[in-house]
Amino acid sequence: MDLKALRINGKRLQQSLEEMAKIGATPAGGVQRLTLTDEDKRARDLFVQWLKELDLEITIDEMGNIFGKRAGKNNALPPVMSGSHIDSQPKGGRFDGILGVMGTLEALRTLHENDVQTERPIVIVDWTNEEGSRFAPAMVSSGVWAGALDRDYAYGLTDINGFKFGEELERIGYKGPAPAKKHPLHAYYEYHIEQGPMLERQGKTIGAPKGILCLHWYDIYLTGEANQVGPTPMEGRHDALCAAAEMILKVNQLPDKMGGNMVATVGEIQNYPNSRNIIPDRIHFTVDIRSWDDEHAIKAWEDVKTDFNAIARRRGCPIKIEETWRVEHSPFDEKLVQRVLKTAENLGYSALHMVSGAGHDASYMNQIAPTAMIFVPSIGGRSHVEVEETTWEDCEAGGNVLLHCLLQSANEQ
Amino acid sequence: MDLKALRINGKRLQQSLEEMAKIGATPAGGVQRLTLTDEDKRARDLFVQWLKELDLEITIDEMGNIFGKRAGKNNALPPVMSGSHIDSQPKGGRFDGILGVMGTLEALRTLHENDVQTERPIVIVDWTNEEGSRFAPAMVSSGVWAGALDRDYAYGLTDINGFKFGEELERIGYKGPAPAKKHPLHAYYEYHIEQGPMLERQGKTIGAPKGILCLHWYDIYLTGEANQVGPTPMEGRHDALCAAAEMILKVNQLPDKMGGNMVATVGEIQNYPNSRNIIPDRIHFTVDIRSWDDEHAIKAWEDVKTDFNAIARRRGCPIKIEETWRVEHSPFDEKLVQRVLKTAENLGYSALHMVSGAGHDASYMNQIAPTAMIFVPSIGGRSHVEVEETTWEDCEAGGNVLLHCLLQSANEQ
Repeated sequence: MDLKALRINGKRLQQSLEEMAKIGATPAGGVQRLTLTDEDKRARDLFVQWLKELDLEITIDEMGNIFGKRAGKNNALPPVMSGSHIDSQPKGGRFDGILGVMGTLEALRTLHENDVQTERPIVIVDWTNEEGSRFAPAMVSSGVWAGALDRDYAYGLTDINGFKFGEELERIGYKGPAPAKKHPLHAYYEYHIEQGPMLERQGKTIGAPKGILCLHWYDIYLTGEANQVGPTPMEGRHDALCAAAEMILKVNQLPDKMGGNMVATVGEIQNYPNSRNIIPDRIHFTVDIRSWDDEHAIKAWEDVKTDFNAIARRRGCPIKIEETWRVEHSPFDEKLVQRVLKTAENLGYSALHMVSGAGHDASYMNQIAPTAMIFVPSIGGRSHVEVEETTWEDCEAGGNVLLHCLLQSANEQ
Repeated sequence: MDLKALRINGKRLQQSLEEMAKIGATPAGGVQRLTLTDEDKRARDLFVQWLKELDLEITIDEMGNIFGKRAGKNNALPPVMSGSHIDSQPKGGRFDGILGVMGTLEALRTLHENDVQTERPIVIVDWTNEEGSRFAPAMVSSGVWAGALDRDYAYGLTDINGFKFGEELERIGYKGPAPAKKHPLHAYYEYHIEQGPMLERQGKTIGAPKGILCLHWYDIYLTGEANQVGPTPMEGRHDALCAAAEMILKVNQLPDKMGGNMVATVGEIQNYPNSRNIIPDRIHFTVDIRSWDDEHAIKAWEDVKTDFNAIARRRGCPIKIEETWRVEHSPFDEKLVQRVLKTAENLGYSALHMVSGAGHDASYMNQIAPTAMIFVPSIGGRSHVEVEETTWEDCEAGGNVLLHCLLQSANEQ
């Protein structure tokens, strides 16, 4: 048959996504399928059932990662891998993660029903706990598989109710026998919603990120002086919330001040004693800085840290700064990225060479194999919320791009 | 005897305060004696026992207010009343409230042991739930007694664990038979720590507030747009926390901008979803504005409200504003205030004519009787915290001023 004419079944992809969206469905139209919960287990069970229908060789490893291997003509060659994650944010959306798993499944179904044999095996994967919202940090199981994180460290992660990752994995029956250990891959693809507004703004259907931005996390602690607000004059106050407010605005102004492709955000703040008639004396807040240029992000941090220290001194609010986490920017395999762009063009879809601001399992996979991602537009740029939405048409388009990228990589000698 | 030479027993006042400080003592040297808890009951029991030793006529009313009446020569004359409250803030101090109750007790003990008879009766009082930290709002039982608040409204107040004021009052055995209903008073005095730094800064021992500042409370709600921080460019963000940060600084700058005797504070903030990699989309924060001049405070509010609306518009974060509570400024009885100043001078203590930024039961009493307060210095201006401190010498000084103010008022025909 003419492989070039091959297309996925968009209706069937939609049905798979709708079926999955029922598991952990929220009243507002989103999904809550936190990792290693009963909802995650039900979605995994359905996924495994679907894999069985395609006669794939199913492996579940000690991190609960689920692999389904479709044999190639030459199974001695390193396989091509593709997938994403089934778990969701609390009150998350119906596309984040699951689109990449169902998209790969749909590509394999298309190959299956058309009896297409590839040179290399193709492996579909669901990575455990990509979100990190129940057990921080994120992307932990692709991290263990890629050799960047330690298995027992992951087992020991604890959720806010005191449940341990390792025990929950066992409880839902997905602590598999296979070691979570990398093996050679010819390529890794991850199909995902953009989670940002760039495709929509530029009117493009397919995004080919050249890589993932660096990600720097900081934790700031301020100490003020608590007092009854009424009798305490403004002069001489040490109001930790006012100091924090100044710093939050400095962070917000940072990308504009520094220039370049950068975002900087304060997402989290705790204020104590948090009583309307007591001057705040203890603050914790977070800073998240992302850029394509690691050095630029560090320069920005040094700049804002100087501001922080000056504000803290002026307001008499001692500051403690923790440099919590730094992940370097992750440039994808240029050949595969160009393949995504070219494939989109060949299929008649408009495409955008861009960056990924969000982290993905592809970050860790990129450390051990040639990697690329395929993005489709998020309506309004919304994600990690129940109104997260992508049109079925775009889901199908991304699925076709994935199918043909897989075919090209899997047919390479 | 020469009444002018009469002095309280400073050592005995210290002992009473130390005895009371054991009830609900915290490891860091403060007191946690929330209203209508077992600790409050134990302190009340000890207080009532001490009242009995002075042969006072004890009345407990339906709000749990405890009165001890010391007969005068002419019991048909309206009495002079003095007191404060036994309850404390969570992790509060050893002086706030209890000093005014123990100070009055010490004055009555002094009269008792010296066989001093006054023309008018003197009534000592402990008001239930002044703090309002377990059952909001504050000063609720003096409010009911003065006719400003409704008894059944107070009974229905619920703490964070769902316990009701009325039921807790009954449980600790202090729902008394007497109606909580005002009767004519010749004068009301309340002796209290300053809870601010003015006396210390000016090196004065006794403060005579000309009244209590007005108190205006507002609640602000902002709506932003939640998104994954990484893929969401800075342009077009609707970050509710950044909008709040700008507003918090506007509140902080307000007293300086408006001039006059004013304080303005944001003490409380809630941020949602409060996750380090999601742009905040929901904020609640409070505004507390206090001034001697009600109109000036309202003008300041109108000014900052204009800023709030402009910031909300510019950042695309819809704002909802609630004008939660307004208490007008409460000017005390000028004759009694002058008496406090003059009495301090006669006793050889330096004194300051000032204002009270904090609310007190004296606010409600001021609505129905000539009222004045006596302040002594708070070390470092600290209060509502465990390190709240006043020297024993100053406690004694304030007690002597109270004794002689009571004598003068109670001996007026």
